[in-house]
Amino acid sequence: MDFRNKIANISANSWEIYLPNLSIDCIVFGFHENELKVLVVKILDDEIWALPGGYILKDENLIDAANRILKDRTGAENVYLQQFRVFGDINRSEGFFQDYADDLWNKQRFVSVGFYALVDYTKVNLVVDEFSIKCEWKSIDDLPELMMDHNFIFEKALATLRKQLIHKPIGYNLLPEKFTMPELQKLYEIILSKKLNRGNFYRKMLRYNILTKLEETRKGGAHKAPDLYIFNQENYQLALKNGFNEGW
Amino acid sequence: MDFRNKIANISANSWEIYLPNLSIDCIVFGFHENELKVLVVKILDDEIWALPGGYILKDENLIDAANRILKDRTGAENVYLQQFRVFGDINRSEGFFQDYADDLWNKQRFVSVGFYALVDYTKVNLVVDEFSIKCEWKSIDDLPELMMDHNFIFEKALATLRKQLIHKPIGYNLLPEKFTMPELQKLYEIILSKKLNRGNFYRKMLRYNILTKLEETRKGGAHKAPDLYIFNQENYQLALKNGFNEGW
Repeated sequence: MDFRNKIANISANSWEIYLPNLSIDCIVFGFHENELKVLVVKILDDEIWALPGGYILKDENLIDAANRILKDRTGAENVYLQQFRVFGDINRSEGFFQDYADDLWNKQRFVSVGFYALVDYTKVNLVVDEFSIKCEWKSIDDLPELMMDHNFIFEKALATLRKQLIHKPIGYNLLPEKFTMPELQKLYEIILSKKLNRGNFYRKMLRYNILTKLEETRKGGAHKAPDLYIFNQENYQLALKNGFNEGW
Repeated sequence: MDFRNKIANISANSWEIYLPNLSIDCIVFGFHENELKVLVVKILDDEIWALPGGYILKDENLIDAANRILKDRTGAENVYLQQFRVFGDINRSEGFFQDYADDLWNKQRFVSVGFYALVDYTKVNLVVDEFSIKCEWKSIDDLPELMMDHNFIFEKALATLRKQLIHKPIGYNLLPEKFTMPELQKLYEIILSKKLNRGNFYRKMLRYNILTKLEETRKGGAHKAPDLYIFNQENYQLALKNGFNEGW
């Protein structure tokens, strides 16, 4: 069945079970071995990519809806999604469903709540749902055109991720358990899309007090074996909760 | 007419003109002469306080709705409202309208978008709307019990304001044009509800490069006349837009 028939067929049921005019879009950033990607789905027939999104059941908490949608549409589970912004302009889906009947669920105005997350993308087992022909990780530097305002939503999510990097720790579950300072720096550089000064990075990172230096070093390279670190879980979690102690 | 009759009377019209299941709540912090307050309304008859809130017209942008609601319910205009969080738990208005008919507009489930602002409260001309008997500034340290989850929404807004203080400048339109460093420090201390170290505050504030020291000093005190400052508008606006340059 094609996309058009499919959404027409389920429209009446959608009116029945979901909160009207309200949707969710998920921006899941995936990091692994020096690559930053984002999770997108390709819609049946229409040959257009989209962020994985969906609707809120009438008796479902907003955050539960976000987790369910992400799992149903992509297979991604146990992802720590955080809401970051509401997209509420009247013209955000302008024209996208213009060829469809006016009472089609999808053709209504939707105010969308954006959720984002950053995960190790090798730990996500992707599935393709009934509305899609593909579900893939795309490099953030080479993102295809997305439907409606989804490129704008992505940009806002990326800006949020970069801001978060200033105030909260990052790296646990993304780097190997034991890692070197250059590896940690590389993670920051890839997310920020810029080179960082090595000395400043070391000083700042050590001041945050979230790293434990191990006795062992990384063996096998041509150069002096670099020091290995692990995250100090207690301090890491505390900083995740409260932000780095750089306030007033 | 009492509140019960009033909302029953307009219920049909609300179903007609607003997006269902979606609301807005505004948290407007007011600062003036060393006091931090929040704007609340007292609902007709029910003798309970609430945040000024309302609904989104079917053909209205979300941010326009927020500004309209704030103006209609409190008289506050030209307030720079920012969305900060969505409140989407199913039980957030549990029981509040239980004595009303099930098809009452207000009795439905509402996912609410929180907007907040910080203004000089002497510059706001308050009005009382048709659903309220009062509209007042209440000290944040002495806030009455608010309806539904509005105390929780307030707490989240206050936490957001305090976080914003770490990364963005504050004070323009809240302090006199010319101010002393102790006056600026006092503003921070009141919002944060804690004493700050004077030396650290001076150093940090000067490093942010948003102040211009004037030749003149404040006359008339018993002590040495303190230096006067104004905000450097260009740098202030830049920092407001990009955050203080303390990133990676």
